[in-house]
Amino acid sequence: MNAVDIINKTKKNISLTEEEIKYLVNGYVSGEIPDYQMSAWLMAVCLNGLTDEETVSLTLAMRDSGDILDLSCIKKTTVDKHSTGGVGDKTSLIIGPAAAACGIAVPKMSGRGLGHTGGTIDKLESIEGFRVELPFSEFTDIVNKTGFSIISQSGKLCPADKKIYSLRNSTGTVDSIPLICASIMSKKLALNADCLLLDVKCGSGAFMKTPGDAEKLGRLMEKVGRSAGKKVRAVVTDMNTPLGCCIGNSLEIREAVELLRGNIKGRLYQVCVTLTANMLELAGKGSLSECRAMAEEAIASGRALTVLKETIKLQGGDDSIFNDEKFFRAAKYSHVIYAPRDVEVISVNAEELGMASLILGAGRINKDDEIDYSAGIVLEFEPGDKISMDAPLMTLYSDCVSDFSEAALRAYNALQFKTLTGMALT
Amino acid sequence: MNAVDIINKTKKNISLTEEEIKYLVNGYVSGEIPDYQMSAWLMAVCLNGLTDEETVSLTLAMRDSGDILDLSCIKKTTVDKHSTGGVGDKTSLIIGPAAAACGIAVPKMSGRGLGHTGGTIDKLESIEGFRVELPFSEFTDIVNKTGFSIISQSGKLCPADKKIYSLRNSTGTVDSIPLICASIMSKKLALNADCLLLDVKCGSGAFMKTPGDAEKLGRLMEKVGRSAGKKVRAVVTDMNTPLGCCIGNSLEIREAVELLRGNIKGRLYQVCVTLTANMLELAGKGSLSECRAMAEEAIASGRALTVLKETIKLQGGDDSIFNDEKFFRAAKYSHVIYAPRDVEVISVNAEELGMASLILGAGRINKDDEIDYSAGIVLEFEPGDKISMDAPLMTLYSDCVSDFSEAALRAYNALQFKTLTGMALT
Repeated sequence: MNAVDIINKTKKNISLTEEEIKYLVNGYVSGEIPDYQMSAWLMAVCLNGLTDEETVSLTLAMRDSGDILDLSCIKKTTVDKHSTGGVGDKTSLIIGPAAAACGIAVPKMSGRGLGHTGGTIDKLESIEGFRVELPFSEFTDIVNKTGFSIISQSGKLCPADKKIYSLRNSTGTVDSIPLICASIMSKKLALNADCLLLDVKCGSGAFMKTPGDAEKLGRLMEKVGRSAGKKVRAVVTDMNTPLGCCIGNSLEIREAVELLRGNIKGRLYQVCVTLTANMLELAGKGSLSECRAMAEEAIASGRALTVLKETIKLQGGDDSIFNDEKFFRAAKYSHVIYAPRDVEVISVNAEELGMASLILGAGRINKDDEIDYSAGIVLEFEPGDKISMDAPLMTLYSDCVSDFSEAALRAYNALQFKTLTGMALT
Repeated sequence: MNAVDIINKTKKNISLTEEEIKYLVNGYVSGEIPDYQMSAWLMAVCLNGLTDEETVSLTLAMRDSGDILDLSCIKKTTVDKHSTGGVGDKTSLIIGPAAAACGIAVPKMSGRGLGHTGGTIDKLESIEGFRVELPFSEFTDIVNKTGFSIISQSGKLCPADKKIYSLRNSTGTVDSIPLICASIMSKKLALNADCLLLDVKCGSGAFMKTPGDAEKLGRLMEKVGRSAGKKVRAVVTDMNTPLGCCIGNSLEIREAVELLRGNIKGRLYQVCVTLTANMLELAGKGSLSECRAMAEEAIASGRALTVLKETIKLQGGDDSIFNDEKFFRAAKYSHVIYAPRDVEVISVNAEELGMASLILGAGRINKDDEIDYSAGIVLEFEPGDKISMDAPLMTLYSDCVSDFSEAALRAYNALQFKTLTGMALT
């Protein structure tokens, strides 16, 4: 067996055996197979694809490159959830506590973000004192106590994914459904929860731009997860419009808390209830409609809020943020964009708003960039709302940017209006 | 401009600009663009191809990565010839002298071989004392004196090709017509002769297996050469059957000399006359039929033999090889394969015979392997010949292999027979 023969097979659309895929992954992790051979193979995969069987083999080989967690010390059924991510996606901070409040265990590992806004771990780090790294025993202890804990992805899980992902990033080989599937599922299978709910975001603010691709990725991840003996379900949710009205790290924590306080009922609430219900149903808690009612009750009763509060406290975070509505200090600079006339907002380009929040400092362009936790955008409407001339459309926040002209232009251009009086604006 | 965007464009089948291709080639030669980005791009090219315009840009960027020769000190019209190579291809040693004998200048650089048998330079090194490296002024002096000189490819020409070729070899990205075209033509355009004849070999013993691919490569190389202001012609010749009856380094030198002595008239002779005539016609020496007559006369008169003899002498080679028919010492070991019954040889698989000669020591498996100059195979027939039972079919030679069982089996299996009496043999 040698790497050139393996590359040539994929190039000629000949399926690889499980042994060949293991040889490739293990050889790459050990350094025996150099970057330049792996990147040639990855490009062949991008252009020719992999069969489902090959994707299963690739995922398992990547999972097996590092530790696989033993969650047997957690007493309840464990349910993991993954979102392919998007602009303003703070669902983990809501559905983890909501599902835990309904009697299942949610041990979660998340990543940092690149682009747009921070990842879930970055958002949590905007809470003073919050520890994103815990010893494994403390992590499972918290899950046993509150039902929910969230820490940053351990470096001991899936070293193959880490090395391959970094290579893909610098060789134009990111957008391949089998490679995306293997990257996500190898980490999820190494975390090793009993059940797994996959939230595949679809639209302009997500990695999957079309429903067809989102469906394909979802079905493939289900197949891979089931072949590894897990209960898995993929749900496709919309990411053409940002989820909720806040984009930015501490702003999104605030919005999650507000939702758990029962103060937010829009699309974000609906998506969170749907995802929580699916997690509960996967864990055998009842029919989907029963589980939906349970999820709604967990939020309405404040029990989900209590789970989040206790978890944050146990992980060292400042829980005074739960005492006051203005729990995060305001950003140094802010800028309000007003409606130029009476308008109805038809659509919001999530990706463009994400880029505007990146300009404000909420995300990272390079891996080592520092994040401005206070930076971001708050929308004062939901798509379909009618807004009077001179009423605020959105507010931009930043600690590091005082000249808002670039970000404001970008954010404003993300909106599509119907003019209610007078001429069309765009 | 950055490498990832360029890789992504080729992956998405978007044409690159001349500037982007220059950036890629120059960045790779300087080391700014790493192997793993180049290999991802090369794989994208293998699977998506390049437009003719992109291939021109790539070839010229590779040509411009090193020296471009100034052949203005050569008084006659210069004509270069390239063969894509194959088993038993010794045409350079015949048509260079033949064309020179007809009044054109043939300054030639050749490579060493990998696989099958040696390259033209390896074949020439089987002549004692022959210098394959000459100062440029001595090279052009010899061309001015005899009309012909042949040396090994200078390292100062096309460093980009050298680096890219070695990467292609280890990343499964060899078989791409635009990449093959750019590799060949960048070196030929750096040698910078006025005219260029391209002999595209086609068949089992050649890199291009089908007439369609050979045609495509030929037309593409013509287009690239013409866009650089050269007179270019591509001719497709058959390489299903080995060219001539000798395979192996000193054996092929002997066959070339025998042909120039007027003692060989088969397919090898016809191919050599055709190629020589095309070179002469490209250089404006007359119509193709006039040029064919000139080429035949140059061989028949012995003038082409004189050119070869003088050139070998001027390059330090032992010209006593021209005095005696048995000018090379015989190999230490030999083995004759006899016809097992009365047969007609229908076909000879050139690639398989090449592999047999490789086993005998005539070629290289790895770049640094030593070549056994005396090793090889002499066929005692041409396809279509009828051979009586127990008459010799071929003789195998080697200095380093005394057990002929493996090579003999492989060589024997390369032949397809029609049995003239009795049962079918294979």
